[in-house]
Amino acid sequence: MADYAPVRGCIVVKPYGWSLYENMRDQLDRRFKDTGHSNAAFPMFIPMSFLQKEAQHVKGFSPELAVVTVGGGEQLEEPLAIRPTSETIIGYMYAQWIKSYRDLPILINSWNSVVRWEKRTRPFLRTTEFYWQEGHTAHATHEDSTAEVMRMLDVYADHAVQECAVPVIRGRKSLSERFAGAEITYSIEAMMGDKKALQSATSHDLGQNFARAFDIKFLDRDNTEKLCWTTSWGMSWRMLGAVIMVHGDDHGLRLPPKIAPIQVIVVPIFKNDSEKSSVMDTADRIFHIMKTAGLRVKLDSRDETPGYKFNDWEMRGVPLRIEVGPKDVANKTVAVARRDIPGKAGKSFIPQESIALRVPGLLDDIQAGLLAQATAFRDANIHEVNTYDEFKSAVEDGFALAPLVDDPAVDAKIQEETKATNRCFPLHQAEGEWECIITGQKVHERALFGKAY
Amino acid sequence: MADYAPVRGCIVVKPYGWSLYENMRDQLDRRFKDTGHSNAAFPMFIPMSFLQKEAQHVKGFSPELAVVTVGGGEQLEEPLAIRPTSETIIGYMYAQWIKSYRDLPILINSWNSVVRWEKRTRPFLRTTEFYWQEGHTAHATHEDSTAEVMRMLDVYADHAVQECAVPVIRGRKSLSERFAGAEITYSIEAMMGDKKALQSATSHDLGQNFARAFDIKFLDRDNTEKLCWTTSWGMSWRMLGAVIMVHGDDHGLRLPPKIAPIQVIVVPIFKNDSEKSSVMDTADRIFHIMKTAGLRVKLDSRDETPGYKFNDWEMRGVPLRIEVGPKDVANKTVAVARRDIPGKAGKSFIPQESIALRVPGLLDDIQAGLLAQATAFRDANIHEVNTYDEFKSAVEDGFALAPLVDDPAVDAKIQEETKATNRCFPLHQAEGEWECIITGQKVHERALFGKAY
Repeated sequence: MADYAPVRGCIVVKPYGWSLYENMRDQLDRRFKDTGHSNAAFPMFIPMSFLQKEAQHVKGFSPELAVVTVGGGEQLEEPLAIRPTSETIIGYMYAQWIKSYRDLPILINSWNSVVRWEKRTRPFLRTTEFYWQEGHTAHATHEDSTAEVMRMLDVYADHAVQECAVPVIRGRKSLSERFAGAEITYSIEAMMGDKKALQSATSHDLGQNFARAFDIKFLDRDNTEKLCWTTSWGMSWRMLGAVIMVHGDDHGLRLPPKIAPIQVIVVPIFKNDSEKSSVMDTADRIFHIMKTAGLRVKLDSRDETPGYKFNDWEMRGVPLRIEVGPKDVANKTVAVARRDIPGKAGKSFIPQESIALRVPGLLDDIQAGLLAQATAFRDANIHEVNTYDEFKSAVEDGFALAPLVDDPAVDAKIQEETKATNRCFPLHQAEGEWECIITGQKVHERALFGKAY
Repeated sequence: MADYAPVRGCIVVKPYGWSLYENMRDQLDRRFKDTGHSNAAFPMFIPMSFLQKEAQHVKGFSPELAVVTVGGGEQLEEPLAIRPTSETIIGYMYAQWIKSYRDLPILINSWNSVVRWEKRTRPFLRTTEFYWQEGHTAHATHEDSTAEVMRMLDVYADHAVQECAVPVIRGRKSLSERFAGAEITYSIEAMMGDKKALQSATSHDLGQNFARAFDIKFLDRDNTEKLCWTTSWGMSWRMLGAVIMVHGDDHGLRLPPKIAPIQVIVVPIFKNDSEKSSVMDTADRIFHIMKTAGLRVKLDSRDETPGYKFNDWEMRGVPLRIEVGPKDVANKTVAVARRDIPGKAGKSFIPQESIALRVPGLLDDIQAGLLAQATAFRDANIHEVNTYDEFKSAVEDGFALAPLVDDPAVDAKIQEETKATNRCFPLHQAEGEWECIITGQKVHERALFGKAY
């Protein structure tokens, strides 16, 4: 999938990994376009003075910047940051483009890479440079911008669940975890196979903070000049990390069919040349039937043993393996093996003539199977707690859902004492009144905590 | 399409322009995949020491680098260049990945942006940061790498001609115009509407230069270790500039249907509310018929006059306009206007019932019409010359095709005296023997010269 690059904290994504990323990108992009967004491209360079215009923003991102000080052999008058995110430069452009309420809403997304000089890095989860998309919208009213923030949170959740088979919890970030410059940050949170937490995407209500800093104004219907309400939202290749870590098992990757670079691998099995000819003919025919059906299929005709090939494609997470041997040729059947169900339970024989009919349904079953497994695992490892003692043991073995005040000092104390961080206040949770496990104050919502990477 | 960014030499590509770029990218990407290539992602950062490993390469690119010297608030031990092109870092990775002849060929492409600190910039044609793709391949033999270099030159030419309707000339770059580090550089060259020349893509035979510099070796079938043969090839958003400048006229853009963001615009025409209802019904039906046929179509229901809309969509280069007025409703027809043929000659009426049948054919005609116009214009402005005097007047009004030695000193002299540059030695040209217009030496090929931007 990926390899370490010879640059601090950077990775190279190899063709198989990039193909997976492209499949995820294309499906997310389709969702963006279906909700009225267009793509555009903005420069990677941001003048340092831009970052300083929004006070919280510069405070949040300054320590992580990569800065270009030399261009064309000469010292630059004003150093340029490589974008850690593009609110500032896009805000500057929006101020030029937006004149009237007729220009609103403006709904733009950009696929690019950004740079954050992180202290600890980890492939896909936290890399110095990472690929992502960042959406930036401007609206006439807070009602409109709020609707956009929630719409995009839903788009992310739907993509994660439906296409990546990764169950996620939608929530509001605590004050201490808010995006630098946002009024409210929402996120989707997932549990990995090691029971750690991963923030998988964020959607920010920026209020009028960036509109004020960059003078993004419009003439409203009532002929008065008003500040816009803006949002931003992003999902990175970290989601690819989530797919790897949620579904992987001891034999390697397990990829959901909707995003797998190869959905079906056809492996011919033969002992000698006389078997080879009829087996290869059948395997080739099976391959073409599925290719014609629009599936991402590959015929493995390498000069290796079937066992080697089985292991290889298992490791690569291909959802469905079709084996064609001499008996299958004689019986006009094929053997199919599901990657989501190990061993004999995942194997069956189907008639060759019903391949085109049966394989798409099998892939749907595998997609659903992976989601069901991940959801059951997650739900079994979320513990509802009412005391700090219960909390401490809960976060050693999954997530804790605990009554809590939204206070940065409380988040910090818990993190220091347990290493668990406040993932979010889930949007959908039981109503009730509890006592905060730290302060004892009455609270009406619970927070989700877990250890992160 | 685009706007100036608040960063030296950079542009912002707005949604309409980016949609055009995405259409071009997707079609080129399909061609890459059809010829066996995969996409991957490499870091934007290149350690300065990497660039220094290939002597010609560092000489060529050093003056144009943007350099990051500060990361995370600290001075970096080794400054990092932002990639001006990725031969070096990809060469380093290939050296890790390639062990045996079984690993070859390795055929990878990357879509990204690169930075070159150019003195003079111009939107799309020469910008500090520009989007492009760069292909990098490694092969066991020079025969294989040469075949790849020519294959990709053909892919570019085919994309330019078939999809962008931009006629191009395939040729070998002169020694003075070679890519820094290449053995031979090939390019496709186009003539813009102002008769200037634009290099639209390049394909490089890198010989074993980068393999030697980065130790890219493989164990061959004969059990000896050998250096690989590598290639690289790239096309940038400059091709988008070519589309604008080749086809544009006094009324604005003219976009080829195969890459146009909007292929068909439907404009309803009515004087009052009683007309509006039946006209809008019909226009909406026409819109849905074409949408269902898979065309990129838009219904312009804005509250503006038809004249305003006609001008607006003409300026944006939409290939085909469909007008629906009260008479069309009564006659069960629509009026269609081709963007490639101005005025009455480009207008006709077609029955509503044959829309789905006729419009795709009309779009094909427009695609062919734009290519034919551009080809005729270019061919009328290439002048075959045999003396330097003829040459001098020829390059004032188009391209000159002149017998010439391949000598950097000669290229330099001509450029200084005429401002015209050596575009290429065309691959397909008449055989013959001529006298070089500068040195008088016998030569067996002619060079194409033109003024560039």
